[in-house]
Amino acid sequence: MDARHPIYDVILTRRDVRRFRPEPVPHQVLYRVLEAAHHAPSVGFMQPWNFIVVRDATVKAQVKQVFLSENARAARHYHGPRRQLYDGLKLEGILEAPVNVCVTCDRSRCGPHVLGRNSMPETDLFSTCCAIQNLWLAARAEGLGVGWVSIITVERLRRILGIPRGIALVAYLCIGYPEAFLPKPELELVGWAPRLPLRDLVFAERWGHQDQVMVRTERRMNGC
Amino acid sequence: MDARHPIYDVILTRRDVRRFRPEPVPHQVLYRVLEAAHHAPSVGFMQPWNFIVVRDATVKAQVKQVFLSENARAARHYHGPRRQLYDGLKLEGILEAPVNVCVTCDRSRCGPHVLGRNSMPETDLFSTCCAIQNLWLAARAEGLGVGWVSIITVERLRRILGIPRGIALVAYLCIGYPEAFLPKPELELVGWAPRLPLRDLVFAERWGHQDQVMVRTERRMNGC
Repeated sequence: MDARHPIYDVILTRRDVRRFRPEPVPHQVLYRVLEAAHHAPSVGFMQPWNFIVVRDATVKAQVKQVFLSENARAARHYHGPRRQLYDGLKLEGILEAPVNVCVTCDRSRCGPHVLGRNSMPETDLFSTCCAIQNLWLAARAEGLGVGWVSIITVERLRRILGIPRGIALVAYLCIGYPEAFLPKPELELVGWAPRLPLRDLVFAERWGHQDQVMVRTERRMNGC
Repeated sequence: MDARHPIYDVILTRRDVRRFRPEPVPHQVLYRVLEAAHHAPSVGFMQPWNFIVVRDATVKAQVKQVFLSENARAARHYHGPRRQLYDGLKLEGILEAPVNVCVTCDRSRCGPHVLGRNSMPETDLFSTCCAIQNLWLAARAEGLGVGWVSIITVERLRRILGIPRGIALVAYLCIGYPEAFLPKPELELVGWAPRLPLRDLVFAERWGHQDQVMVRTERRMNGC
């Protein structure tokens, strides 16, 4: 296998999608995408995830209300041109997306001692996030867009979906066919934040020591 | 695109690898894999991750010591045949893997207000886990194995790698060409834990209500 493996296209063209077309997601496609999620790595093979599939317009409308009030709170942190930019962003597609999926993590699945989770109890949450990324990439390969709505009030959303104590709410996702896959992340395109250079993020042996091997490799790969 | 998209093979054959061959990982391959990680989604386009690449045998030996003492502590939770099974498992490949990568999350990157992180501050950690899964899948597509070592004492590992306060240590990964990609997760193969049926993990509209649409879809896809 080489640089041209199709997974790189999937990874590089995956987007956080907030604008959906109305076509339904075929059941078999959704099943494949959930199966991809279920094949994520998990600490001690704990498989701590559940997926609550939301298709009902009434439930979606309740979730949308949660977003609206939480977003009003979040917007207060921005002022002037930044606030204008913020207000112009579309930050969710809850109602438009034919399917929403809430991803949870059962923190006590497999009992009190989970192999590999003794000193890092949060690894069950981390496993659940790996499942979300599997889902996101499989969806992209199917031509489906996914948007992660993180502007929510967790306790209100838990009540709407009946999520019991002991189960962590990790993500609320909107899934459907997108109006478009933008060429770059929207926050980069509108000038909210730039992509960081990878070479500044890679260290060798210790925090803060730039990895010269990767710097030289990058130069060579870019032909300069 | 359809069910046969090559990403499904990558997702289904990805393994947590602990047995590595000694061949080095070409720099360009490692670069591509880190670039895949860097193209993960991140809350507010925060890109909170760093990657500390460890190749030095002395550093690896120190990390291995951390694993050994933490694993001795973890093993005490198991008794009888379960303890025998536990002791027989190989749970890391720190020294054998030509490259180790510690993945961190800078919790204050982009300042105090990150778009989308107002009510769920842990979403920066979740983004970092999405990056790890991108790395893992890209590595698999390159024929590389990745093993996540979660049996570590975080504070000791932070000191070895000089990780400052405010930076979370999310994962310590071993990367190299594997002796083999097992047909199933090793913990499933040795009978440590079974794979859960997906249909039991998917709910409709509310926690605990099995999604009959997905149950029927599964039956149809399995031809029964």
